[in-house]
Amino acid sequence: MSLDPEIAARLKRNADGLVPAIAQQHDTGEVLMMAWMNDEALYRTLTTGRATYWSRSRDELWVKGDTSGNVQHVKSVALDCDGDTILLKVDQVGAACHTGDRTCFDAGSLG
Amino acid sequence: MSLDPEIAARLKRNADGLVPAIAQQHDTGEVLMMAWMNDEALYRTLTTGRATYWSRSRDELWVKGDTSGNVQHVKSVALDCDGDTILLKVDQVGAACHTGDRTCFDAGSLG
Repeated sequence: MSLDPEIAARLKRNADGLVPAIAQQHDTGEVLMMAWMNDEALYRTLTTGRATYWSRSRDELWVKGDTSGNVQHVKSVALDCDGDTILLKVDQVGAACHTGDRTCFDAGSLG
Repeated sequence: MSLDPEIAARLKRNADGLVPAIAQQHDTGEVLMMAWMNDEALYRTLTTGRATYWSRSRDELWVKGDTSGNVQHVKSVALDCDGDTILLKVDQVGAACHTGDRTCFDAGSLG
């Protein structure tokens, strides 16, 4: 099984075959994190209901929360007007950030 | 004048010198769009209060709304834990999307 060809045709991937994916908490609207997906990660996200990314550092599929327990249950998935960004609305269990912060942006205010 | 060296040192740019920037409506939490910034775009965003991106299609700085009128007034700017994504909270005038939709994700539901 693989990604619906109609969806695959709409995706604009970068040179590495990846598309950025924004994860947003579905009810509070918090932007939790940004990560990357290849076709397989998007297919698994759509079919399993668990947010799944491509880890650029580990070079492998990464089911968010598989090691930390901080899983993301997917509520909806949308592609932007250009097909080059994905927006996931999720229910985040625990912290989204590996630092233990709720979101990856909590500690990084620039003003 | 240019970007604060301390901020510049925290940025992880891609091979083109760019960092993805997510624009979010500050009060409703809507994710409006994703675009790209170089150091100069981030510097101008921080100092002018108008969201400014690097247009990859036009290969030039792009002050959001300069042609459409649909400007983004910047409320806050944050860098993520890895320094490779920027989150802007903005007050969006009119539509964020070039299609006339409020956000670039309105028409792209995948489920």
